[in-house]
Amino acid sequence: MADMVKESGSGLIASDRVEGTAVFDPAGEKLGHISNFMVEKRSGQVRYATLSFGGFLGIGNDHYPLPWSMLNYDTDKGGYVVELSKAVLEDAPRHTADERPDYDESYGRDVFQYYGLIYPW
Amino acid sequence: MADMVKESGSGLIASDRVEGTAVFDPAGEKLGHISNFMVEKRSGQVRYATLSFGGFLGIGNDHYPLPWSMLNYDTDKGGYVVELSKAVLEDAPRHTADERPDYDESYGRDVFQYYGLIYPW
Repeated sequence: MADMVKESGSGLIASDRVEGTAVFDPAGEKLGHISNFMVEKRSGQVRYATLSFGGFLGIGNDHYPLPWSMLNYDTDKGGYVVELSKAVLEDAPRHTADERPDYDESYGRDVFQYYGLIYPW
Repeated sequence: MADMVKESGSGLIASDRVEGTAVFDPAGEKLGHISNFMVEKRSGQVRYATLSFGGFLGIGNDHYPLPWSMLNYDTDKGGYVVELSKAVLEDAPRHTADERPDYDESYGRDVFQYYGLIYPW
């Protein structure tokens, strides 16, 4: 987490700087980029960042919701590093940009379970 | 908060749907729009939404950071309603899009204090 502190004294990042940021696997291979992210309106808690592979904002491409905690910003790479491979993504929960699911508790539990994480809400 | 629940079963909203959303005062007068918002990287907590008055994404215009808790989404208006007036904004903390401050604790306390809110971190 030291690299996060290095990047900004406040530890804050602007929403439009998250969108479009590259995502790499631990070996440094680019997986895609963050198209957008999902915020719990009442609490302001970011729950998922959406990984996609296509053009900026991922119009027309599959969106893979990743629990926010999976993202680690790497200042050297200038992007996020996540502990997963392209192979893991082959069966991962996804949706198109136009057909965003309800992101209800059932969907959230499926996403967290897929990545071996405890659903915290 | 009932209107939030009505809008989405999950209570989640996509980051790119927050950006560009109109902001109204309680009387229904449009104050501006949300240009972007500031997220605490480690926790994923949204701390501020940035109100601006200019074109989409507010390039070249003043940005007014508002504590996220000040925003209430109104489905009828299709935008956020905040309990403040244009007059209050005249002396409010602001910065240009190009010269974003460090958003350190001192700045955060100033913003919260200006709006009569307790700084919670």
